[in-house]
Amino acid sequence: MGNYTTIETGAPSAWDGKSFVEGDLALENLGMSVNTTAPGEGSAFWHRHARLEELYIFLDGHGELAIDDEVVAVEPGTMVKVGLDAWRALRCSPDSAVPLRWLCVRAGADTLAGVGRDAELDRERPFPWSA
Amino acid sequence: MGNYTTIETGAPSAWDGKSFVEGDLALENLGMSVNTTAPGEGSAFWHRHARLEELYIFLDGHGELAIDDEVVAVEPGTMVKVGLDAWRALRCSPDSAVPLRWLCVRAGADTLAGVGRDAELDRERPFPWSA
Repeated sequence: MGNYTTIETGAPSAWDGKSFVEGDLALENLGMSVNTTAPGEGSAFWHRHARLEELYIFLDGHGELAIDDEVVAVEPGTMVKVGLDAWRALRCSPDSAVPLRWLCVRAGADTLAGVGRDAELDRERPFPWSA
Repeated sequence: MGNYTTIETGAPSAWDGKSFVEGDLALENLGMSVNTTAPGEGSAFWHRHARLEELYIFLDGHGELAIDDEVVAVEPGTMVKVGLDAWRALRCSPDSAVPLRWLCVRAGADTLAGVGRDAELDRERPFPWSA
C-alpha cells in the first residue's frame, strides 16, 4: 500500500449530517468536515479559532455565513476564508430547495497535532437569523 | 470589512480549467486548486511534494488517480490524502459522461510561504493509462 489514504463519502447529494474526516484520511496538516445542513437549520453555536484558518466551500443549496457582525450569502461555488479570531456561524436558508452541502477545511502554521485545541465556542451569542 | 475573504466560482458544473485560489482568498496556511478535466484528458506531468500533504476531493465525473505504482478509481465523493514524496497524476476516464470536477487542497506544518516551493515534476514518467 502506497503513501495515500482513500475514503468514499458518496456524491454530495447523498451526504448527511457532519463528519470530520481527518482521522479516516490520516491527514496530519489538514482537517476537514463534510457537512449537510437542512433548510432552516444552522449552527448550534458560534465558534472561532486562534491558530487555524478555515476555508468554507459551499457546493449545493443556499444560506448565510455570519462572521462577527457581517453576513455573507452563500450558494454553490461560494468559497470563504475565515481568518483567525473571527466568530462564525451559518445556516441553510428556510427557502433553500435543497440542503446546504459544504466542506470546511482547516490548517495552521503547524501540524494539526501541534496546533492542538484552538477553538473557542460561544453558546450565548444570538444568530443574525434569529433576530 | 471583517476578517474573511470570499470568491464565487459558480457551481461545480460551471467550472472550467484549473484555478489556484489561495491568492484570491488570501489564504496563508492552505492552498487549493479548483479543477475540471475533460473525458480522456489528464495530467501533463507527474508531481510530488516534499513538505505539503495534498487532499484530492472528487465531486463529479469518474477517473483514475495514479500514486506511485498504484491506480485508484475515483468518482463523486472519493477523497484521497496523498502523502509526502508520493508521485501522483490523474485523468478523467474517456467514457466519463461528464468532466472530472475536483478540488486539491494542500498544507504543511508551516505557512505556505514558509514551506515555499516544495514540488518536483517528472515530465518523462509514463502514465498507467498510456501503456
